Amino acid sequence: MSIDASLDAAAAITEADIFDAHLGGKLSVQSKMPLTTKRDLSIAYTPGVAQVSRAIAADPALAATHTWASRLVVVVSDGTAVLGLGDIGAAASLPVMEGKSALFKEFGGLDSIPLVLNTTNVDEIVETLVRLRPSFGAVNLEDVSAPRCFELEERLIEALDCPVMHDDQHGTAVVVLAALINAAKVAGKELGQMRAVISGAGAAGIAISEILINVGLGDVVIVDSKGIVHRDRDDLNAVKAKYAAITNKEGLIGGIREALDGADVVVGVSSSKFEEADLAKMNENAVIFALSNPDPEVMPDVARKYAAVVATGRSDFPNQINNVLAFPGIFRGALDAGARRITPAMKLAAAHAIAELAEESLSNEFIVPSPLDPRVIPAVSAAVQAAVVAE
Amino acid sequence: MSIDASLDAAAAITEADIFDAHLGGKLSVQSKMPLTTKRDLSIAYTPGVAQVSRAIAADPALAATHTWASRLVVVVSDGTAVLGLGDIGAAASLPVMEGKSALFKEFGGLDSIPLVLNTTNVDEIVETLVRLRPSFGAVNLEDVSAPRCFELEERLIEALDCPVMHDDQHGTAVVVLAALINAAKVAGKELGQMRAVISGAGAAGIAISEILINVGLGDVVIVDSKGIVHRDRDDLNAVKAKYAAITNKEGLIGGIREALDGADVVVGVSSSKFEEADLAKMNENAVIFALSNPDPEVMPDVARKYAAVVATGRSDFPNQINNVLAFPGIFRGALDAGARRITPAMKLAAAHAIAELAEESLSNEFIVPSPLDPRVIPAVSAAVQAAVVAE
Repeated sequence: MSIDASLDAAAAITEADIFDAHLGGKLSVQSKMPLTTKRDLSIAYTPGVAQVSRAIAADPALAATHTWASRLVVVVSDGTAVLGLGDIGAAASLPVMEGKSALFKEFGGLDSIPLVLNTTNVDEIVETLVRLRPSFGAVNLEDVSAPRCFELEERLIEALDCPVMHDDQHGTAVVVLAALINAAKVAGKELGQMRAVISGAGAAGIAISEILINVGLGDVVIVDSKGIVHRDRDDLNAVKAKYAAITNKEGLIGGIREALDGADVVVGVSSSKFEEADLAKMNENAVIFALSNPDPEVMPDVARKYAAVVATGRSDFPNQINNVLAFPGIFRGALDAGARRITPAMKLAAAHAIAELAEESLSNEFIVPSPLDPRVIPAVSAAVQAAVVAE
Repeated sequence: MSIDASLDAAAAITEADIFDAHLGGKLSVQSKMPLTTKRDLSIAYTPGVAQVSRAIAADPALAATHTWASRLVVVVSDGTAVLGLGDIGAAASLPVMEGKSALFKEFGGLDSIPLVLNTTNVDEIVETLVRLRPSFGAVNLEDVSAPRCFELEERLIEALDCPVMHDDQHGTAVVVLAALINAAKVAGKELGQMRAVISGAGAAGIAISEILINVGLGDVVIVDSKGIVHRDRDDLNAVKAKYAAITNKEGLIGGIREALDGADVVVGVSSSKFEEADLAKMNENAVIFALSNPDPEVMPDVARKYAAVVATGRSDFPNQINNVLAFPGIFRGALDAGARRITPAMKLAAAHAIAELAEESLSNEFIVPSPLDPRVIPAVSAAVQAAVVAE
């Protein structure tokens, strides 16, 4: 089906289509070998399996090659920040996590299972995953509310000797950077000369700020619900305080209006709207990423009046910033390379790989490849593996 | 393939066959719907999935119908009593648990995932599963050492509002009872008139004793490594002390020899050997189940000298006592019926259903159906559902 045809079909999705597709859940577990003869049973189960268990007991490294665990991604959520729905709890988050596991398999070729927890206590979530450690090979954190998500991710990275990534942070950040690399080319600007405003200091906002600092952007100014994040504010949580110290070089104060004045880029990852009068104060050839879903901070037709390049999170407008461009390839690359952590260099490599795939057709309406472009995951995975080797 | 042909093929299994079959693990997760168009993504993931999550948040009962969790069996082990290998740890137990999950799917049509824990603390295992409760619909405990397994199962049944069963206990017990129902017919005896000796007071021994008491056997005498379990022993753990009070009506003392004297049935579920001189003291038309694997307590050709019916745990002798006859159908029936617990009545119903399937060809070499008989799981599941309805 062509993109246009699939968009038309997408427009025609009914509530019944959605609920029917979710009936009984979206995942299925299969045995990789048939179990139809006594011979099959004797190989896959007793008595044959005892040889494999005994071998792993003698040489624990064999668990990586002779069980599914080392390449199994657990999609973990406590249901506290589910899509735009907020804290709806673990059980209600499960359809999202099932979908994520399905994407891991379909796009990344990785087996994945959802584990949703009815505790929101960081200590307890860490403890639970530490106890289950022999069951999996990587952790994709999903839809955990900020600022708990920052501590949780950090604690899990310390506690587990396997890749851990909170996708709402870093998956988003990687794709935003990929899009910005190409948007800068379209706008005729250098990343090192650009000032970006990040509207929203939640999971995505902080991680986007981090990756833009790591890639060497001119400056980053974060705006939260109280206004510009700066050193003199006394109402910042620990994470925002850390970013107050390394962003906003000019010491701007005020709100989104003051932040946008003279900015080159704005990335919206909160539900606050962008006013036309404020966008008008941005620099020439501005870049506007209005990523809130389903209602962008500003609609693209309006944003285009003030920007050279506009992107959203929606599939029905050009330039969709979609995490599926990043996370399957990042985890696949990390696991293929045997990496124990997902490092900043691996994320930068992933962003560059995504950006490169759009370069040949670059325009203000094509700065990132389609999520359905089959080249994406292999390219991201290869770039991530190369980054592991280089480190 | 015929049974004979598959037995021949089974005999030819090499170490390479086994290790090759386990390479990369034995399970695979699939998306139940294709994810190849934007429309697919919009239904299975954002934005469509938000409608399902919102609906579950509003009506938690929808989690049972619109996620996979309510019919997902987690196969849980701490790796402390793995097959005949003992306490080899969680990672080394995983091939067995993967095999068990594969059997749940292939035989019971239930999705299943292994969760292995690197803690052996009962409190911690219970706590972990309570936290993960929204992720699954039933718990199959596996290969947990006695006597911890009794407390763990009891605590999980109390803590979780879903079916929980330790298969090494009750799966074994159900199949033993099924076999004994038919063995009694072959031997021309009534269950209520028979005295059974259970050699082994671990997970299987205790559960077999329980189900034989529940079915109304004449008497049960348990023998552990110190001898006959009786009321005057002061070295019994809590579980054995409980059974000392409800077994051994005649107050027998001594060892396996004294227990077997005048017994009608012996079930071996420890690795202790049975001596011919002791078996010779059993009643006429005795029943000998020598279930230790791979080395039975007595080989069938020897046992047959002293018994009307002999069974083992091995697939290469007649009358294989194999848990796969029971657990897929028990869980399937419990979940299909929406049962919150697996009760004694459900286990008895499962045993009778299994026994009935062998009745038409009943002989001293055919007291249980083949694990590959396609009628078994539907019959067990239907019987379990009927028991739920009757309760």
